[in-house]
Amino acid sequence: MPNLLQPQIQDANAPRSPVDSDGTGRFLALARELSEVGKGFYERNWVLGTSGNFSAAISKDPIRLAITATGLDKGRLLPEQFLEIDESTNVLRGDGKPSAETLLHIEIVRERNAGAVLHTHSVWSTVLSGLYAAKGGISIEGYEMLKGLSGIQTHEHREWLPIIPNSQYMAPLSRVVSDTLKQYPAAHGFLLQEHGLYTWGADIDEARRHIEILEFLMETLVRRMNVGHAI
Amino acid sequence: MPNLLQPQIQDANAPRSPVDSDGTGRFLALARELSEVGKGFYERNWVLGTSGNFSAAISKDPIRLAITATGLDKGRLLPEQFLEIDESTNVLRGDGKPSAETLLHIEIVRERNAGAVLHTHSVWSTVLSGLYAAKGGISIEGYEMLKGLSGIQTHEHREWLPIIPNSQYMAPLSRVVSDTLKQYPAAHGFLLQEHGLYTWGADIDEARRHIEILEFLMETLVRRMNVGHAI
Amino acid sequence: MPNLLQPQIQDANAPRSPVDSDGTGRFLALARELSEVGKGFYERNWVLGTSGNFSAAISKDPIRLAITATGLDKGRLLPEQFLEIDESTNVLRGDGKPSAETLLHIEIVRERNAGAVLHTHSVWSTVLSGLYAAKGGISIEGYEMLKGLSGIQTHEHREWLPIIPNSQYMAPLSRVVSDTLKQYPAAHGFLLQEHGLYTWGADIDEARRHIEILEFLMETLVRRMNVGHAI
Amino acid sequence: MPNLLQPQIQDANAPRSPVDSDGTGRFLALARELSEVGKGFYERNWVLGTSGNFSAAISKDPIRLAITATGLDKGRLLPEQFLEIDESTNVLRGDGKPSAETLLHIEIVRERNAGAVLHTHSVWSTVLSGLYAAKGGISIEGYEMLKGLSGIQTHEHREWLPIIPNSQYMAPLSRVVSDTLKQYPAAHGFLLQEHGLYTWGADIDEARRHIEILEFLMETLVRRMNVGHAI
Repeated sequence: MPNLLQPQIQDANAPRSPVDSDGTGRFLALARELSEVGKGFYERNWVLGTSGNFSAAISKDPIRLAITATGLDKGRLLPEQFLEIDESTNVLRGDGKPSAETLLHIEIVRERNAGAVLHTHSVWSTVLSGLYAAKGGISIEGYEMLKGLSGIQTHEHREWLPIIPNSQYMAPLSRVVSDTLKQYPAAHGFLLQEHGLYTWGADIDEARRHIEILEFLMETLVRRMNVGHAI
Repeated sequence: MPNLLQPQIQDANAPRSPVDSDGTGRFLALARELSEVGKGFYERNWVLGTSGNFSAAISKDPIRLAITATGLDKGRLLPEQFLEIDESTNVLRGDGKPSAETLLHIEIVRERNAGAVLHTHSVWSTVLSGLYAAKGGISIEGYEMLKGLSGIQTHEHREWLPIIPNSQYMAPLSRVVSDTLKQYPAAHGFLLQEHGLYTWGADIDEARRHIEILEFLMETLVRRMNVGHAI
Repeated sequence: MPNLLQPQIQDANAPRSPVDSDGTGRFLALARELSEVGKGFYERNWVLGTSGNFSAAISKDPIRLAITATGLDKGRLLPEQFLEIDESTNVLRGDGKPSAETLLHIEIVRERNAGAVLHTHSVWSTVLSGLYAAKGGISIEGYEMLKGLSGIQTHEHREWLPIIPNSQYMAPLSRVVSDTLKQYPAAHGFLLQEHGLYTWGADIDEARRHIEILEFLMETLVRRMNVGHAI
Repeated sequence: MPNLLQPQIQDANAPRSPVDSDGTGRFLALARELSEVGKGFYERNWVLGTSGNFSAAISKDPIRLAITATGLDKGRLLPEQFLEIDESTNVLRGDGKPSAETLLHIEIVRERNAGAVLHTHSVWSTVLSGLYAAKGGISIEGYEMLKGLSGIQTHEHREWLPIIPNSQYMAPLSRVVSDTLKQYPAAHGFLLQEHGLYTWGADIDEARRHIEILEFLMETLVRRMNVGHAI
């Protein structure tokens, strides 16, 4: 079974296999993979207190996402707790309410043709997005780790990580997110102020890699600021 | 057996199931869950050196708690090491002495109608409760993570985390705790100075979520103070 | 077998059980326990790079210790890699060279009647023992965590943690250790400058608890110094 | 089988055993060991975001290395994902492209007669190599942990850790690495600026020990700088 499903997992644009006509196999495979991602992030303190949310595209045309339900411990997700939603956030499969921030996931999938969207709440992103809020973003430059971001070939790259004011009103916030993604077409992620990081990728592995890289870089920036001008 | 017991675990006010007339099943289920909580907290360095203590309500009227015995390694608790106590701290089940701070647990269950009470000793709470002791508490505001606290709907919430002077005299300390809980009816937790955090919840899951959130926020506050006014 | 041996493990002064006339059972039980301690300490970054060493008393009169051999990864110790030594550091059992610091273990067992001696190399103790070297020690006072040290009843306790200059000459160093232990009879541990922490206990569990408490307190002190006088 | 292969693993200069005439056994044994190293480093946040690379010598004359393929998650390496390369970086075994930095591994094996080369990207090395770049290196002195470096007998040792400007041009960079190794024949490792640490050893265990020691020392240096002149 896994062998048959494997090609589908690689490409959300592929036609459905006849052995998985209702997409259940793909849904469960993605949910299983996102559960594992959650476990790893929880161990790193990136999704404490039921924070964070994750999604992956079952298909992109029309948009169908496997997404975390709201209020669950992200370190102990079960595949059957995930929801399938359409682009109007209707729940097509599963029990529970999708994450409050579901609209942001849909916006990102649409704007970036993403196969997966991951959102973490680390201490580092909370500190940094508060410190730099007035500047509207953070410039990250000169680090080898930047090369792990999709399409980047050199550490001389300058990444602009936009900071968006936090809000509980998801419709207007999703429009700000959409505008921000259009304004910075090269950005690999963005921060919500004192809230956390959003990033994405062609598939779950790439999105996870982007989380690791951006979290690493934010920790590095804060720790370097701590040292100040000591040398 | 687990299926039969599950509904009881959800509600400490429910009448006892005929299959668990003496509460043994519920006691063991809560003790097992608290053991797992302890393991996770120990891995995060929140209950080193046998510090910390945990309880959950077997019933609330009358108050019966499953609670940690004193002096045990919180990362290696066995369910059979827990004690059952009544509201006068008499041991009804199990061998050993209940935690020195048992009276505080009873006070919290009474004042907040809590189903579980958790107490951690992290480095962050130790540092922060020392730094802010003279102010009597810490104000935490503007963080998305606050929304994970029970009943909070927005990051614009301002949480006051009271700091109570540490003491080895449990009877007077429990009266100060009771007064503090009455004075700050919206507080989700409190600190004992250079000692640690107390929080609670309707059940163990909620109390654990509150620990994760408040520990996250305290770490965030200290790390932000480290950076100072660098920007 | 474990049941028969258990009482011996509790008390290094007990006569040998007839079923363990040559002490092999006790030796292996202690070695197994110390291996587990090493695994936990390695995960916390307290014994990286084969640093650290551990011992426990098989008997105290005459002194016989189960002790780590030099140069091994402390996160992957096997019970059969431990050595048995006498008070002149002769190897009575096992292959390999005992830790260079074996003499310090013997001195501590003798001066404190300890059942176990543990030595860690954490970042926190390295930083702190360098910063305070000129003062000859660190005073730790007011922390609830101090109550976890053997015999301490209140956070108002003041613990003096002596700092001894580091040396590669073990015979003179062991005399300085002996003098220091005599000079500060109430001390629960000491630091070697930019080297690490020694502590001990009546048995392995107590020594491990002392490590956790002193490492916690040193991390707390450094983190509090980082914040400075910000409030 | 493992027993037969064990002697080969210890010595890359040994003639091939008749039972492993094409080196498959040795290749797989090294790949398996490097996979385990990767898992441990990933848990410590030293190789996030597919960063880092590892190699071990199958033979030294001619040079044949088992080396990581580019772009893989270093926490989930499978032995069959490793490549065998010769000293011109031709792939002799396995599918995939060898790490971009393969030339540096070959240079190090040649210059230092190393049996294993390990490269990590920690936050600490990134911060420190940026702060000290203008000085061309970092001097580390007085720490007991230095004694874990091969051939060092005392904490009074002064280790010079050269910092090489980062570059995406591997041919010229490998010549700078070669020159640096010749210029500092006593160095146990070097940093690429805002990129990470390279170290090596006679075998994988020694190289891993060197990583742990140098990462420990860099974390210690940054944390001590954080405290400043507080005492």
